[in-house]
Amino acid sequence: MCDVKRDEFLRLLPDIKQKIQDCDFVAIDTEFTGLCLSEACQPSLFDTPQERYRKLRQTVGSFIICQVGVSVFKKDMKYNRFDVWSYNFHLFPQSFATLDVRFGCQASSLEFLCHHNFDFNKFVYEGVPYLDQDQEKQLRKHLEQTCWPSAGGSQQDQLQLCCSMVSQWLSNGGGTELNIPAPKGPLMFLIHRALRTSFPEIWTYDAANSQIAVRKVSQEKRKEEEEKDDLADRALASLLGFTHVFRALTQTGKPVVGHNMLMDLMLLYSKMHKPLPEKYSHFKRDIHQLFPCIYDTKHIAAELKKPLAEFAVLQSSILQELFDALNSHKGRFMVLHSPAIVAAAECDRYTNESHPHEAGYDSYMAGYVFIRMSHLLTMQGISKQQPVPPRFRRYLEVLKGFQDRVNVIRASVDHICLSGEDPASRRPQWLYITLAQSKAARTINSAQIAERFSAYGSVDIRPLDGSHFLVAAHSFYCAKDILRAYRSHKLIHVTYYNMWKHSSTVQVLLWTCIGVSVLGIAWTFLSKSS
Amino acid sequence: MCDVKRDEFLRLLPDIKQKIQDCDFVAIDTEFTGLCLSEACQPSLFDTPQERYRKLRQTVGSFIICQVGVSVFKKDMKYNRFDVWSYNFHLFPQSFATLDVRFGCQASSLEFLCHHNFDFNKFVYEGVPYLDQDQEKQLRKHLEQTCWPSAGGSQQDQLQLCCSMVSQWLSNGGGTELNIPAPKGPLMFLIHRALRTSFPEIWTYDAANSQIAVRKVSQEKRKEEEEKDDLADRALASLLGFTHVFRALTQTGKPVVGHNMLMDLMLLYSKMHKPLPEKYSHFKRDIHQLFPCIYDTKHIAAELKKPLAEFAVLQSSILQELFDALNSHKGRFMVLHSPAIVAAAECDRYTNESHPHEAGYDSYMAGYVFIRMSHLLTMQGISKQQPVPPRFRRYLEVLKGFQDRVNVIRASVDHICLSGEDPASRRPQWLYITLAQSKAARTINSAQIAERFSAYGSVDIRPLDGSHFLVAAHSFYCAKDILRAYRSHKLIHVTYYNMWKHSSTVQVLLWTCIGVSVLGIAWTFLSKSS
Repeated sequence: MCDVKRDEFLRLLPDIKQKIQDCDFVAIDTEFTGLCLSEACQPSLFDTPQERYRKLRQTVGSFIICQVGVSVFKKDMKYNRFDVWSYNFHLFPQSFATLDVRFGCQASSLEFLCHHNFDFNKFVYEGVPYLDQDQEKQLRKHLEQTCWPSAGGSQQDQLQLCCSMVSQWLSNGGGTELNIPAPKGPLMFLIHRALRTSFPEIWTYDAANSQIAVRKVSQEKRKEEEEKDDLADRALASLLGFTHVFRALTQTGKPVVGHNMLMDLMLLYSKMHKPLPEKYSHFKRDIHQLFPCIYDTKHIAAELKKPLAEFAVLQSSILQELFDALNSHKGRFMVLHSPAIVAAAECDRYTNESHPHEAGYDSYMAGYVFIRMSHLLTMQGISKQQPVPPRFRRYLEVLKGFQDRVNVIRASVDHICLSGEDPASRRPQWLYITLAQSKAARTINSAQIAERFSAYGSVDIRPLDGSHFLVAAHSFYCAKDILRAYRSHKLIHVTYYNMWKHSSTVQVLLWTCIGVSVLGIAWTFLSKSS
Repeated sequence: MCDVKRDEFLRLLPDIKQKIQDCDFVAIDTEFTGLCLSEACQPSLFDTPQERYRKLRQTVGSFIICQVGVSVFKKDMKYNRFDVWSYNFHLFPQSFATLDVRFGCQASSLEFLCHHNFDFNKFVYEGVPYLDQDQEKQLRKHLEQTCWPSAGGSQQDQLQLCCSMVSQWLSNGGGTELNIPAPKGPLMFLIHRALRTSFPEIWTYDAANSQIAVRKVSQEKRKEEEEKDDLADRALASLLGFTHVFRALTQTGKPVVGHNMLMDLMLLYSKMHKPLPEKYSHFKRDIHQLFPCIYDTKHIAAELKKPLAEFAVLQSSILQELFDALNSHKGRFMVLHSPAIVAAAECDRYTNESHPHEAGYDSYMAGYVFIRMSHLLTMQGISKQQPVPPRFRRYLEVLKGFQDRVNVIRASVDHICLSGEDPASRRPQWLYITLAQSKAARTINSAQIAERFSAYGSVDIRPLDGSHFLVAAHSFYCAKDILRAYRSHKLIHVTYYNMWKHSSTVQVLLWTCIGVSVLGIAWTFLSKSS
């Protein structure tokens, strides 16, 4: 199926929902209009999970999803095969009445999408709408009013044109039926409503070829039609758009797979559900309620790199590279009973072509590598005499330890856990830099230190004052290499950070405690001696 | 010429600048990604010029120009003809190094552009960049550093690819020349710089077909090339993009024509020059310095409707309708010596087809109607024996009274004056509504009053408290009709607003003054009598 356009969305929806209902798991991916709201939201190795959530929340609140991919995987035990249906939805927040979303774009993010052949016309012209709960409520309230809010600008012109066509038709006697061309989507509902309100002697019906049929009706007939009028419901269903799919996902509770999916989850929550809660813990609670079973293939690939080293297919945790390795002959036939993974006929371009960063394709790849990794882990060390291929639920049992664990890039932790305590940091201790008191040292700033140290790996620098800096290094190797290289440097002195020794807050606290203790002892001593 | 793409912009620029230098006047138009930042920024008939500026400033700060049209008009006296060159530029704020613009979009504004066949792919893929003064300064500072800031993500990959190609070529002996494919635009400069920095034994040159030529050079040759290196200048020139055209416009001081152009002017100021000043008066001072001679055809059309009533071509001040009327046979041949207006061959689709809300076409129409209206006014009442057609400067003399007067929609004034005092309001006095003290009246709100009154014309309502409202009406007719219709209404009592009587602030002030006066008199009296 791949691309799902605005006009055909509601027609395809029942089948999409059925597929989700029947499947084993769903893989998702999103593309968005911006990656980072401001310099202050840049990810840093200093970030705790709370801090990262705070940064991403700001970013996600400002930008929107422009494309979402949903790939539905179902195991066919008879043929030891997974069937995949991939859907690639462009999303656009269509305006209607007082609903008129303002959203941000980041130049470099749109350029990134260009680099991957993103079609911005499909985004705006054919994007499927969506609503969060507040927008749905607001809209329902409007639609339940007798008088719908007026349309703006060019929409108003089209409404007036339709009204005058009907008016002319009526003044000419009003034949059996008048067909007027009507655009699909929300404007069509406004036209229905405007005509029905303006002309009490008619009723309007949907007709073929995106037309509206106008017929003269008796008062009784009109009353009858009015009673079964579902225009408001239909308008709402149309504008809910992709939110229907989101709700199908949350209602079925099927396992949801993604690759480096924290931002995807936050975006879906924020755009289809409600504003992201201020508290990180509330987000974790809510998202776990919505998606009770989540797997992040980037996290799994990183964790399985060592345990599955014998297969040598998890060298990279970059989605396309991981996919290529696992889709190679070696990746597919290394262990017994490797299942076939077969894209539905409508979407075979995902089998034959590579479309990185098209959300539908990325969701396909995420689901694909999920199956392959699960299978390798399940079959590792299993005797060649194992008679039948494992069922899908066996994969989930084997992967239990990775459930709800979501990858985090460039932070103090490498993943978070949505259904429990976050893991402790596995990064090296911070480094503590003291610049020499010389003139030459005084010109050294964070950026220069970052540049020097980046030769040893990823680092982030936090200035404390003009001559002291903290350094968070990505790996133990990197930290050690820096320490070794700067062991006897004349300008830059590097040690491991020691909170008791280096934190001015702790120092003040410590000395206060000592002071209080001394005073306490003195007072005890004095009061005893007196 | 019409569409000017990113890749060809710098090649076409000298000719565009020359045309601006040689012309009689320039007409401009812009399309943008949003019209109104929030409900609070909606235009209202209550708005003073200051208030409107404040609202537009917020909106303009959040959105960007996605298309700008520039039509250059030159009179050829020999043939009594205006030649027109129209340019339609898509604009996009390309990212480079630390420059990475975040901008807003409004759903309904993008839908409006859809309605007029806007190509969003041309916008992002082919949009010409631009810089304001701050961005230019920031970029110049970066480019002057020995070490350019590193590129992000996919750009970094391309840089590394190029470096490894050169590295391999060198390790294979380094033949006469290596040609590597390089993207046009900013990334090309980063590649030049990266290669030159990484390999001291080579120099890089631009080659045909968007390639970079790499040659091994001697130390002397390299030094020589380094001295005439203009990479930073070229990168800056490329990224300045449309700002070059903006500066050509401001430097030549040619008359600038637009249609309803306040937002256009504010957008150009904000995106190509500097952030809009907080004070309205400072904006007026600055924009008048930048564009010392401005004509707004919407204002002129409205003002000339009565004086030129005999020609019956200024019924509408909507640009397309005005153009159609003035481009009709009647519009073109009603008076003597009507000049021909001829689009350059490259852009004749503007002569043959209608492209409303394509910025280039709208700028063409604005310039066209400017000439036709000027000519009508110039020739009105002039004897048929007038031997020669008027020169262009005659038009400007005749239109002197309209210079620097810019149309304002739905405000307390219908235009502002950029080079002097704004005009007094020509709207009717406000109306003052008092709701009856009955239960039925208590449910009436602003929206309902607006709906009732809109039958008589445009109105805006400002609630004072639960039972009092102010009404600003668009026209005297509208205000009178409302007064007449509600003369003896049971729930809604309407009168003209009287500040002395109805303003609670004035009332408080008045009573305070009276109180103080009474006390003063009493004190004088008492002190005299004591």
